[in-house]
Amino acid sequence: MRQRVDFVTLRVEDLEAATRYYVDGLGWQPLLQVPGEVSFFQIGHGQVLSLFAAAGFDADSGGVPATPVTLAHNVDSADAVRAVVDQMVQAGGRTLKAPQPASWGGFHALVQDPSGFGWEIAHNPGWSVAADGTVSLGPAGE
Amino acid sequence: MRQRVDFVTLRVEDLEAATRYYVDGLGWQPLLQVPGEVSFFQIGHGQVLSLFAAAGFDADSGGVPATPVTLAHNVDSADAVRAVVDQMVQAGGRTLKAPQPASWGGFHALVQDPSGFGWEIAHNPGWSVAADGTVSLGPAGE
Repeated sequence: MRQRVDFVTLRVEDLEAATRYYVDGLGWQPLLQVPGEVSFFQIGHGQVLSLFAAAGFDADSGGVPATPVTLAHNVDSADAVRAVVDQMVQAGGRTLKAPQPASWGGFHALVQDPSGFGWEIAHNPGWSVAADGTVSLGPAGE
Repeated sequence: MRQRVDFVTLRVEDLEAATRYYVDGLGWQPLLQVPGEVSFFQIGHGQVLSLFAAAGFDADSGGVPATPVTLAHNVDSADAVRAVVDQMVQAGGRTLKAPQPASWGGFHALVQDPSGFGWEIAHNPGWSVAADGTVSLGPAGE
């Protein structure tokens, strides 16, 4: 198989509240919304985040259990980490780990969205992306 | 904040087994491996999947709880769905939903990796990606 994730799908109990957090709180633009069922957001080149209402998720997925996962959003500085965390908390997110130096050499924080999904907001000085999309993790990523 | 996921991080109890599934079983190439700690895989333009050993994940994340999420991998046909599912099962994955028509108009299956994470393998006739990376979901995505 190709080495590729096309969708990341989050099962949410309250789709309207979950969608408001990303749209009204964080300023994201939906790719497509089906009220009561699903909200889609583009989150990368050819890649989509879905907020999928619980009933539909359960029927569609065959009963995938909960698993420990985080999504990460990289920014360019420690101050930008603090700014995104502030925006998330204003929008209804809950801080799990306040902005602080990370063991791997960068600076980060962890915030749960209102549905409970964990987001890491990180400044990783070793992170870079080439024009073709190839990631370098650099010394801070080791 | 930008509308962007840079990392998807999975907490795994057995990093070596988790890594073998993706590398030996599915043929993926690691971007970087730190034995006993983390394995990184490029999964899109500027985007990385991390398999993070449990102890490090817990220390790093501030205690993110498990949440219901799936990762999806799109292919071009129903036969390709079946082929990827066969490869995953051969590699140690567990079928949650056998290959079948999906309620949203495509064809899909759900497979758990050996660490328990749910992957959807899908053929979505309405899915397309423009040269700039913009996704169209089409009628089958609605």
